[in-house]
Amino acid sequence: MTQLTYTDLEGIEEELKKIKSDTILFITDGRVWEHHSKNLNIKEIFKDKKVIVWKTPEGEMTKTFKEYQSCLEFFLEKGVHRHSHIVAFGGGALSDFAGFIASTILRGIKWTIIPSTLLSMVDAAIGGKVAINSNSGKNLIGAFYPPEKVLISDFFLSTLPEEELKSGKGEVLKYAFLDKDIHELILQKSGLFKIIEACANFKLKVTSNDLTESDQRKILNLGHTLGHAIERIYRLPHGEAVVWGMAIFFKIFEKEEFIKKLQELKMCLDWEEANPPWKHKTFPLDDIINYISKDKKITSLDSIDIILADDPGVPIIKNIKLEELYEKLGNFQHELKVFSL
Amino acid sequence: MTQLTYTDLEGIEEELKKIKSDTILFITDGRVWEHHSKNLNIKEIFKDKKVIVWKTPEGEMTKTFKEYQSCLEFFLEKGVHRHSHIVAFGGGALSDFAGFIASTILRGIKWTIIPSTLLSMVDAAIGGKVAINSNSGKNLIGAFYPPEKVLISDFFLSTLPEEELKSGKGEVLKYAFLDKDIHELILQKSGLFKIIEACANFKLKVTSNDLTESDQRKILNLGHTLGHAIERIYRLPHGEAVVWGMAIFFKIFEKEEFIKKLQELKMCLDWEEANPPWKHKTFPLDDIINYISKDKKITSLDSIDIILADDPGVPIIKNIKLEELYEKLGNFQHELKVFSL
Repeated sequence: MTQLTYTDLEGIEEELKKIKSDTILFITDGRVWEHHSKNLNIKEIFKDKKVIVWKTPEGEMTKTFKEYQSCLEFFLEKGVHRHSHIVAFGGGALSDFAGFIASTILRGIKWTIIPSTLLSMVDAAIGGKVAINSNSGKNLIGAFYPPEKVLISDFFLSTLPEEELKSGKGEVLKYAFLDKDIHELILQKSGLFKIIEACANFKLKVTSNDLTESDQRKILNLGHTLGHAIERIYRLPHGEAVVWGMAIFFKIFEKEEFIKKLQELKMCLDWEEANPPWKHKTFPLDDIINYISKDKKITSLDSIDIILADDPGVPIIKNIKLEELYEKLGNFQHELKVFSL
Repeated sequence: MTQLTYTDLEGIEEELKKIKSDTILFITDGRVWEHHSKNLNIKEIFKDKKVIVWKTPEGEMTKTFKEYQSCLEFFLEKGVHRHSHIVAFGGGALSDFAGFIASTILRGIKWTIIPSTLLSMVDAAIGGKVAINSNSGKNLIGAFYPPEKVLISDFFLSTLPEEELKSGKGEVLKYAFLDKDIHELILQKSGLFKIIEACANFKLKVTSNDLTESDQRKILNLGHTLGHAIERIYRLPHGEAVVWGMAIFFKIFEKEEFIKKLQELKMCLDWEEANPPWKHKTFPLDDIINYISKDKKITSLDSIDIILADDPGVPIIKNIKLEELYEKLGNFQHELKVFSL
């Protein structure tokens, strides 16, 4: 099982020094590295080791075939072996990418993540889902390949743009509907680091029991079925799109009281009221259904598992026909145009 | 664990009909399909299912990045889901390729192999090693991803070119030094199908106990450390190169009696005497060492696990310095130039 460490910058350095390998493949995001190369002195940390560095373009731009191939060929050409160790430093897109490299180079080598964003601390870095994107959709090419260690420090949050912080809070809000303790922590306005720890621990527990998402892991997709489609259509930050995805499900499956709950939780995380991107415009019904029909979570040609919550903290998995989802969204499209969160 | 079925053409059809999925992704080698599309009527076998077919170029030409990307994008564009099932029909290169697709499309779906060559029946189809090639070497990008079923029939061997049959026999000879029963079966000139069954069962047993090659699975690399290098340098068929790889190790680690044993076993498999490709030429010492230093089996910057046999049927794993290997090969290069098998 992945070892989660909540620590400060010095603690991260100590953990990195413990990696048992003579060859470190260090993968980082160009922008993150600009901010933090001065804080994380890898030459010093990995002295006496061979260190090969690959800097990726920013964000989802990283998760392309071209970048995947270039990075693999680069490392292989420089000389790696099965006991080489990948260290991924960056946000969720970076660790998705680095993990896919780790899972496929020499048929898989060990790896460690240092998440640099709130979103990756509570979500992407935990659970071993790694992937690149396809022309047909996000994350359609990948593997389940958990890292050996995830080293979490809120040190890196200080330089995080407001928008990325918000995106992370979106996933935190999802956990509030999956786990009662996290729900309470947020309502009590606990410190962010405490909330991060609770979310990451919760996700590790769920994913360790069902790595390949054949059963309970599916609950983590709350908000994601529509969220991914909305993210793609409006180019919204992931976590924000997930919140809209949750809210729409609460609407169409008649959980109006959860909308209020969502608003309350948002406020506790200092997130201002916002309108959906389709407000006073056409609700993108067909685009959404078209996207979902290519979602890797569909399990047959015409049905999909969706996640709802009976109560905050009591998620349920339900298989519904795509047709039914289409119909429900259609029935509610006018209501969906006028609400806010 | 992978289910191995030894059967005839009809039995293969029956097994294929049992696959529980509404979507079949059928991957085959263009040349194999030319011979056998009339024998394996997939339209009939998979009636009532959605069938998407991808035909690859021949042999190792298949295992490129470009082909990998094109095939993935093709399937994803056509619409697949997590319960889709890949059926791979072809030789070892084809199943290596198809398995890497299976392991990474939608983070992994189930798959079945129908091996069409002797080499794939006794080796590539068993054990879940899947991969494509890198500019730096063969099979450097891949995964451990065993198929659900392997359906083996010698029906397909009737159209196999002599050279490919010989390549398969090369791997069979390797097993003769790993397992006493297989050794005996060959000396008794047992039928080929019986030998295939013994080899495939042996490999399944070894690989099931050590999927990711952290320990005993390594014995299957007997002959491969040098074999892969020789295969690449002289463009030899895989199994033939493996036999030369074994023979060189027997020479340099002073197991002269195994050379005679190898010759005897070769004769039992109707394999004529042959000269090594470097006979009366320069032994490619530097090329070999250069290739090996990029082999994914090396476990540090300067050492490698190699496989030897104390007795036929008693393999041993030994970690040696690349330097030592270089020296030994150098000491024997004149002897290596004049022997035959």
